[in-house]
Amino acid sequence: MIGPNMATMLSFLLTDARVSSAKLSQALHRAVADTFNAISVEGHTSTNDTVFFLANGASGQDIGPFEDCAFEQATLELADELATMIVDDAEGATHRIDIEVSGTASDDDARRIAQSVANSPLVKTAIAGADPNWGRVCSAAGYAGVEFEEKDMSLWLNGELLYDRGAPTKFDPAATSKILRQQRNTLVRLVFTLGNGRARWRTSDLTAEYVRLNADYTT
Amino acid sequence: MIGPNMATMLSFLLTDARVSSAKLSQALHRAVADTFNAISVEGHTSTNDTVFFLANGASGQDIGPFEDCAFEQATLELADELATMIVDDAEGATHRIDIEVSGTASDDDARRIAQSVANSPLVKTAIAGADPNWGRVCSAAGYAGVEFEEKDMSLWLNGELLYDRGAPTKFDPAATSKILRQQRNTLVRLVFTLGNGRARWRTSDLTAEYVRLNADYTT
Repeated sequence: MIGPNMATMLSFLLTDARVSSAKLSQALHRAVADTFNAISVEGHTSTNDTVFFLANGASGQDIGPFEDCAFEQATLELADELATMIVDDAEGATHRIDIEVSGTASDDDARRIAQSVANSPLVKTAIAGADPNWGRVCSAAGYAGVEFEEKDMSLWLNGELLYDRGAPTKFDPAATSKILRQQRNTLVRLVFTLGNGRARWRTSDLTAEYVRLNADYTT
Repeated sequence: MIGPNMATMLSFLLTDARVSSAKLSQALHRAVADTFNAISVEGHTSTNDTVFFLANGASGQDIGPFEDCAFEQATLELADELATMIVDDAEGATHRIDIEVSGTASDDDARRIAQSVANSPLVKTAIAGADPNWGRVCSAAGYAGVEFEEKDMSLWLNGELLYDRGAPTKFDPAATSKILRQQRNTLVRLVFTLGNGRARWRTSDLTAEYVRLNADYTT
């Protein structure tokens, strides 16, 4: 788990469904992988973040094979909402950054690229400064440890194509920067031509206020 | 290679020794591993940092088997001096942080732990704020992907023992903080009881000025 300032992040998910511990655990593990375990603020893993999932069966509603899918979906949506709140509340942040990677050879490749971009202080300061810096995003993807060539990758920022299969486009930096400045939520989308792998990561931008909060904090 | 702001870091090492290309390459590769490839500012690998090693043989001095060792040592010292200059010149830095890890099962384990500590923004902001935050250093070591237990690790900061085989010591935070504030160079030493592995890493602290420089920079 990755949380701000090593605070104890304790998340509690509650349900009154009558559901076995095994099913509860399965739904939680699937949900956590793409939500709580796909966020970062500065990438420093905390020692004590925990997610609990508790069921008391009070509703008498059994979760059978037909309800399984809806139950897992509801668990995922709830976990996603809570995980997003953590990123939205990041210390000193002025932007939330959603990173979507698709078209890689595997989901694991996509996850490594998304995480590499999410943890780059140069990407995070660029977004803080409303700078549509395609070079920082592409190079962070490049050092993720996944083999690809420039022509395999395209980059969209807030729906605008900045880098098209190996070369920057003729986008208007001033207009793109203006949108970055106005919108709190930023969508970074990297699309590859190598397969069907996909992953998503959420992070925050890096501001002087983040540094102030964490440099002035004393044990 | 890891350089500030994705600038092109071009390093040139020159010698007038008469030395074969193979020997030159060997000396350079050994030197670079522990110097240029063991530094970071924010951990964002640049696309175009390069180290050249050129020999013109003008001195007529052959590098034979007996001179090999001195030649390699001189190459290492020169590379170390240049790599240290890069970290000393890091954007907005107020501290250089030298991280020494020893006593791990392998050199590779030590390197992973040193790099993990070096790239933690929470460690880097703590040093910027002169905060002897042993918890941030120890937890960054903990998530490096190397298996160990708390009792296997001790931490010294500028020669003072802060964490002794699994527990914090009764050090004086105010006095330790005062030294951190006064000295530009900070030594973080992690000693394990697991073997003879060792590694060193150099990085800079993370300040609001670093963020300002990288957020305001426009492509």
